[in-house]
Amino acid sequence: MLTLYFTPATCALASHIALEQAGADYQAVCIDFSRNEQQSPDYLRVNPKGRVPALVTSHGTLTETPAILGFICQTHPQAGLAPLDDAFEMARMNSFNSYLCSTVHIAHAHKRRGNRWADDPAAIAAMQKKVPENMSACFELIETEFFKGPWVLGEQYTVSDMYLFTIAQWLEGDGVDVEQFPQVAEHRRRMAVDPVVSKVLAAQKAAV
Amino acid sequence: MLTLYFTPATCALASHIALEQAGADYQAVCIDFSRNEQQSPDYLRVNPKGRVPALVTSHGTLTETPAILGFICQTHPQAGLAPLDDAFEMARMNSFNSYLCSTVHIAHAHKRRGNRWADDPAAIAAMQKKVPENMSACFELIETEFFKGPWVLGEQYTVSDMYLFTIAQWLEGDGVDVEQFPQVAEHRRRMAVDPVVSKVLAAQKAAV
Repeated sequence: MLTLYFTPATCALASHIALEQAGADYQAVCIDFSRNEQQSPDYLRVNPKGRVPALVTSHGTLTETPAILGFICQTHPQAGLAPLDDAFEMARMNSFNSYLCSTVHIAHAHKRRGNRWADDPAAIAAMQKKVPENMSACFELIETEFFKGPWVLGEQYTVSDMYLFTIAQWLEGDGVDVEQFPQVAEHRRRMAVDPVVSKVLAAQKAAV
Repeated sequence: MLTLYFTPATCALASHIALEQAGADYQAVCIDFSRNEQQSPDYLRVNPKGRVPALVTSHGTLTETPAILGFICQTHPQAGLAPLDDAFEMARMNSFNSYLCSTVHIAHAHKRRGNRWADDPAAIAAMQKKVPENMSACFELIETEFFKGPWVLGEQYTVSDMYLFTIAQWLEGDGVDVEQFPQVAEHRRRMAVDPVVSKVLAAQKAAV
């Protein structure tokens, strides 16, 4: 059995949806950021990075959303959550996921996690101020360049949709109106009423 | 033929080494940051992100180092640059590459690219001040938790080695002494004298 460590309202949602959609044999364990559980000695033994998500498998523990998503796709090929047989399309999926983790998530993190990159409170405030501009620029690129429709990669529903949905949920909190990006907004509405997504959101809410 | 757009001393080095090591049919085209070529209309048509690397293939253009590295591995399986037949080991490689792009490269980027995340010069200076601490913390985790030896993943030489080598070259510029991390330091020395790595470094130097 797989064990996913997650915290609600974090990027762990993408992996949680992927596990559920894949029909994986898994349990989800909530790590309470309000009690700083991600830095507890017990959790640091699971994931020395002190972050979520972490996926414990029979071979060892995996971290980083793009890697966990790729693992779920490869080990549950029947679920069809990635273009496994097409190297270019796989790379396109990985490129999208990599952009989300290394640029979009980072743009967002400067809102509440500025202390990762500076100690001065005025610097942290300056970073927060730029978050709406940066998140808007990221989603403008997604809307105009990367989102093919009806799903991120085109006709196939993949883990990139779950990851985009996860991060698109943060837009209002980051001071960005999702309706500026019609395709992303419509995609988010469609994802929110998906039965699997709804089930995972309810499970995460109940875990707090 | 593949075309790699690169700039010397950037993360594009990892993809360049991988193409050379794989024996790929490719050309490498230098984008001159000192002339801001990455923001030229011609280059933005190749990569609307205005960054390097970008890999132009017969199917379309790929960006983001982890995705480009994965594509090179998958399309050149005879080169053995990734544990392609083992889903967990592939995920471990992807996790390492994802950590480099989303945490380590980002920690480094706050040195010279702080204007991405704040406009205030004092804030940018505050970010620069924290770079040695953050890069040290990242490499401490790599040294103690993720680097298996003799290569990143263990016995197999993979694209993760090329990517680690690329970023480890930035340590001195970021105010960090690589010798604090004996395994990483020894790995960097070993990589630097590899014939393929040397050839690519020379080609990048000649391109400027």
